[in-house]
Amino acid sequence: MLKPGSMIGILGGGQLGRMLALAAARLGLKCHTYAPENDSPAFQVSAAHTVAGYDDLDALEVFARSVDVVTYEFENVPVEAVIFLEALAPARPGSKALATAQDRLKEKHLARSLGALTAEFSAVNSLDELRSAVGRIGFPAVLKTNRLGYDGKGQAKISSDDDVAGAWAAVHGQPSILESFVNFRSEVSVIGARGLDGQFVAYDVTENVHRNHILHTSSVPAKIEGALAAKAIEIARGMAEALDYVGVMGTELFVGEGGVYVNEIAPRVHNSGHWTQDACVVSQFEQHIRAISGWPLGSTERHSNVVMTNILGQDAADWAKFAGQANSGLHFYGKAEARENRKMGHINVLTPRQA
Amino acid sequence: MLKPGSMIGILGGGQLGRMLALAAARLGLKCHTYAPENDSPAFQVSAAHTVAGYDDLDALEVFARSVDVVTYEFENVPVEAVIFLEALAPARPGSKALATAQDRLKEKHLARSLGALTAEFSAVNSLDELRSAVGRIGFPAVLKTNRLGYDGKGQAKISSDDDVAGAWAAVHGQPSILESFVNFRSEVSVIGARGLDGQFVAYDVTENVHRNHILHTSSVPAKIEGALAAKAIEIARGMAEALDYVGVMGTELFVGEGGVYVNEIAPRVHNSGHWTQDACVVSQFEQHIRAISGWPLGSTERHSNVVMTNILGQDAADWAKFAGQANSGLHFYGKAEARENRKMGHINVLTPRQA
Repeated sequence: MLKPGSMIGILGGGQLGRMLALAAARLGLKCHTYAPENDSPAFQVSAAHTVAGYDDLDALEVFARSVDVVTYEFENVPVEAVIFLEALAPARPGSKALATAQDRLKEKHLARSLGALTAEFSAVNSLDELRSAVGRIGFPAVLKTNRLGYDGKGQAKISSDDDVAGAWAAVHGQPSILESFVNFRSEVSVIGARGLDGQFVAYDVTENVHRNHILHTSSVPAKIEGALAAKAIEIARGMAEALDYVGVMGTELFVGEGGVYVNEIAPRVHNSGHWTQDACVVSQFEQHIRAISGWPLGSTERHSNVVMTNILGQDAADWAKFAGQANSGLHFYGKAEARENRKMGHINVLTPRQA
Repeated sequence: MLKPGSMIGILGGGQLGRMLALAAARLGLKCHTYAPENDSPAFQVSAAHTVAGYDDLDALEVFARSVDVVTYEFENVPVEAVIFLEALAPARPGSKALATAQDRLKEKHLARSLGALTAEFSAVNSLDELRSAVGRIGFPAVLKTNRLGYDGKGQAKISSDDDVAGAWAAVHGQPSILESFVNFRSEVSVIGARGLDGQFVAYDVTENVHRNHILHTSSVPAKIEGALAAKAIEIARGMAEALDYVGVMGTELFVGEGGVYVNEIAPRVHNSGHWTQDACVVSQFEQHIRAISGWPLGSTERHSNVVMTNILGQDAADWAKFAGQANSGLHFYGKAEARENRKMGHINVLTPRQA
């Protein structure tokens, strides 16, 4: 167990790193944030920070030697950086989880190997392979780069033969995956945490609504049958165990014909878990810090019902309206520039659990 | 209303400043912390900090010009520093509230002028005056320096004529106040907030237990009749209005014969309001930041029952035990040295409100 006063190293300085640093501070732990961008939001609340690239081995080494444990706040950190760091300091979650989460094919194979449902899928490395995959999977389908996509970037929908060539152009010839379209009733996620001792806990299953491929709201309780919720949590637990995972992991699932389908995992705290900041005594951020610090995991009990809504750049001018909303936890990320679709903050609106 | 991204200046770098800075960060506001001590806990989570004395006018001026509003986290900041600063930037609460809270006589006169009960009291500036005050007030009584006391420092109990000379020696000849001993059933406090627009809100009245003059636990709900709780809140509101107060103010009261007695006010967030961090959606720290930033005040609704227990230096070695406590919000202040009776952290243990 890391003592209060220990130093946690965080790769990435965005809002997730910022909220991790705030949660660590609450527990008396310090953070050293490492990010390439000069004005990273997490720097404002970190005891120390380094501005350097993820390929700067000298800077990474100095960073590793200054901290007691390393974690990351986003999954597009190069896995090589984490492999380099984990020779110098404990990295949690480790490179294995990161490598899997960065690779949609590995991710889906893992889910299938655990008996979970997923979309039909096929690896695609050429236009010819795409044509034959489309023949097998049918319409509609989605072509995604196998790596480094998020918030709908690097994706193209294929509804007919006319879309095939355009979709292949959209992924710029990168190794890709064609996925069938899951006809889903709802989207849900599981925010789970696995401790250093293997203990697994999960928050209540969350129901998510996306707009333009960006998370819009997360609501708890989710409208989902108890057995399906339990199944979703069991899948998340299985994935975490298979990856020797330590920390908080987000698992996104579709609720569709025949059960829950794994969409993807995020090896980090997750936007759909932000509601835990105000509806639980221990947030996903504190939970992650507890796990990677070797602490006992905290309570996942939920004291209130809650709807989390993201505040994007185009909504940020309305900040005063959000500030006046009753019974709400409001969070802004300290970002200077309010660009279209940029995540600027979120608001958790609570209602009594018994209501 | 200060926009997200604005800079809040905080005088004092202890745990209260640290928790104010954490609450400000949540709202996207930055903090510049000013304190004389190099290793101030608040520096670890502040976007900027200055190490300088409260009498360093050059440093105070640079500080004032770097911030959008000034506040303070403890009441022993010299009032001259706040008077100097408020010519350069808005200071909230202002020097009037600070000067009153620093002076036990002014404080008691104010409470009496509002029709509130207080202990009997008498100004004492010499051993002769002490003798005659003791004759009037009787035994037991407490002699306190009129200014700069906290956590039982600068106080002496007088139970008989034998204690008089020793008590006068204990206050080192400083201007003092003799107070009668209120025979109290319980100690309570009101954590209230007054906005820039004059709106006043209060959290539920809190029941406090002290050990060795240091707050040990705060419990909510308090065991107090509704009418007395309402009276306590009305007194707190009256004090805040009389002081043109902006921000969070703590009012400590005794529940005794005939009603509630004002003990003292703290012109700042207060240890007995730490429970709001985990039992309310808007904590006293966020409430203070909202008030001084000209934002609408947040909800004071309480979703859970709660007992806050302070963790002192002699308890801090048990941190792992606290870390494992169920359904609890744990807070450490990032202090390196665990001295006897030093406040190192606190824990808020929640139970369902309906239980």
